[in-house]
Amino acid sequence: MSNFWKLNYTFMAMKGPKVVMIGGGTGSFTLLSVLKDYVQDITALVNMADDGGSTGILRDELGVLPPGDVRQCLVALSRSSDQMRELFNYRFPEGTFEGHSFGNLFLTAVEKMTDNFSESVEFASDVLDIQGRVLPMTLDDIRLEIEFYDGSREKGELKIGHMDFQGKLRPKLHLNPAGKINPEANEAIKEADLVVIAPGNLYGSIGPALIIDGVATALNSSNAKLVYICNLMTNSGQTDGFKVSDYANEIERFIGKGRLDYVLYNNKQPSKELLEKYSNKRDYLVEWNDKALNSSSYQAIGGDYLSANIYTKDANDKLRKGSTLVRHDAQAVSEQLMKIYAS
Amino acid sequence: MSNFWKLNYTFMAMKGPKVVMIGGGTGSFTLLSVLKDYVQDITALVNMADDGGSTGILRDELGVLPPGDVRQCLVALSRSSDQMRELFNYRFPEGTFEGHSFGNLFLTAVEKMTDNFSESVEFASDVLDIQGRVLPMTLDDIRLEIEFYDGSREKGELKIGHMDFQGKLRPKLHLNPAGKINPEANEAIKEADLVVIAPGNLYGSIGPALIIDGVATALNSSNAKLVYICNLMTNSGQTDGFKVSDYANEIERFIGKGRLDYVLYNNKQPSKELLEKYSNKRDYLVEWNDKALNSSSYQAIGGDYLSANIYTKDANDKLRKGSTLVRHDAQAVSEQLMKIYAS
Repeated sequence: MSNFWKLNYTFMAMKGPKVVMIGGGTGSFTLLSVLKDYVQDITALVNMADDGGSTGILRDELGVLPPGDVRQCLVALSRSSDQMRELFNYRFPEGTFEGHSFGNLFLTAVEKMTDNFSESVEFASDVLDIQGRVLPMTLDDIRLEIEFYDGSREKGELKIGHMDFQGKLRPKLHLNPAGKINPEANEAIKEADLVVIAPGNLYGSIGPALIIDGVATALNSSNAKLVYICNLMTNSGQTDGFKVSDYANEIERFIGKGRLDYVLYNNKQPSKELLEKYSNKRDYLVEWNDKALNSSSYQAIGGDYLSANIYTKDANDKLRKGSTLVRHDAQAVSEQLMKIYAS
Repeated sequence: MSNFWKLNYTFMAMKGPKVVMIGGGTGSFTLLSVLKDYVQDITALVNMADDGGSTGILRDELGVLPPGDVRQCLVALSRSSDQMRELFNYRFPEGTFEGHSFGNLFLTAVEKMTDNFSESVEFASDVLDIQGRVLPMTLDDIRLEIEFYDGSREKGELKIGHMDFQGKLRPKLHLNPAGKINPEANEAIKEADLVVIAPGNLYGSIGPALIIDGVATALNSSNAKLVYICNLMTNSGQTDGFKVSDYANEIERFIGKGRLDYVLYNNKQPSKELLEKYSNKRDYLVEWNDKALNSSSYQAIGGDYLSANIYTKDANDKLRKGSTLVRHDAQAVSEQLMKIYAS
């Protein structure tokens, strides 16, 4: 953190900005891990549609709510020892528990024991000594469905997250049951000074969080500045050719036209080596169209938001495909968010 | 705790008696849970031969040291919330993880993560905020073998714990590899004021702890008063007809003749109803022979050490057979131990 922002942070901590981040998964993890150095009062609202990997098995076999994305947000906000955070993300490498993360088993065991997912999140929050709060966006046991313009449908986040839409872009999302917003999440949005929509899978993760009954209403009745952090790379088969404004339009399709105040997008080119790795998967850097951004109702802010590090998949995560090679530079994004808050 | 013993405890805490309990499993759990109210400086030394149930699966699949008995001792000495202690003993009721306890997964995950079982026990000790210490009796990956007088042998604690010796009583125990005493356990025994050998399965649990290379030497070079708490019930097929002196003789076969200073045995009859349940399994109350006890080198102390409660098996422990219906009255035993210490 630069000295300038350390000073500003000290000032703002006294004022106590209330920041809410909507998402779950790696995008939220990356940002929350660093944003917590800038913001005292931080709430992570977690999408609850995940049904793949370790999470999917636990949901199917034990009937619990999805622990995986909640776990990632908890670890991101944890102030406990490295060992404790490492333990929560630890995945068993083989045997009966292969691919399952310890934190998922923690949340599952406490939910089964208390018959209350919120209590399991609170207990884990204590053990991990988290800053702020992590809240499930809904406490209903929802499952994701997708509907294409030709009427064809698909069920399940795992399938939907990895499927090829075969050109039938911009599908409708449904939840079954519809799912009501968690009252605590509703309060958090309404009282926030800044609400951030994290980068992430548009139809498998971010969309399912935004379409929960009551979320759009909460966002529209909140005075919070609303910022969307656009994805870095397109997702082959789902968002091919999408520019920044296309992503933003999809977000506003879920929450209501004209609600976004700011859209942050990366304008730094990654290394050729990295782009090649991505283009093997037919994923490309998200481009932007100045004309579209200039005529939008939100303020688009481009910047160098690309982390210099290249990430690799957790080798023990044998229950889930896919990986994120590039991530946001969480420090640059956090500083930009603080500028927006202070503006 | 009676007021008399509260006062005595206050006095002795100032003096700081060092108490070591050798065992593991339910017998140790019952006593440690209460003895910690009487003794500040308490060390549980845990037998490491267990290879059944959840523990056995984790050993086989992940190559870890046996977590189950260590977990029970940790929970017994824990001063943390009820919820945390409940969580460590929580067993998954169904699905892939059916019968596994959360605490076993905790110890296993940390051992795999750090490649160090002692570190996993220390980490769990912190999380559970235990009073005193829990130490594995050995850090070697030992497996139990039994050898009968006719030369026949059997391998594995799970098998041995439940087998019928068919009259070939008093078998020899072997460990493979022999296993060296954990240096910290060695120190604890040597510095102790009182060493207690807990009740438990003679050939599957207590014996395997005592025959580890270095344990008998440590006991014989320690100035500690050595107390053996005799089992309440015989174990059909293994200790049929055993009286208190037979149990004590077996203990001294493992640690050296004449080393026991005290033997505590129960002289209270349980209810008829309970005895009938046991006699269905051909298990009977351990009786005593005054003549044998009077001529022994140890002091035998009979008393009402029987708990009034009837216990039932953990319904979710689907990976392990057997159950303990009667348990020691841990308060009566603890008070007797304090009398011995003060004598």
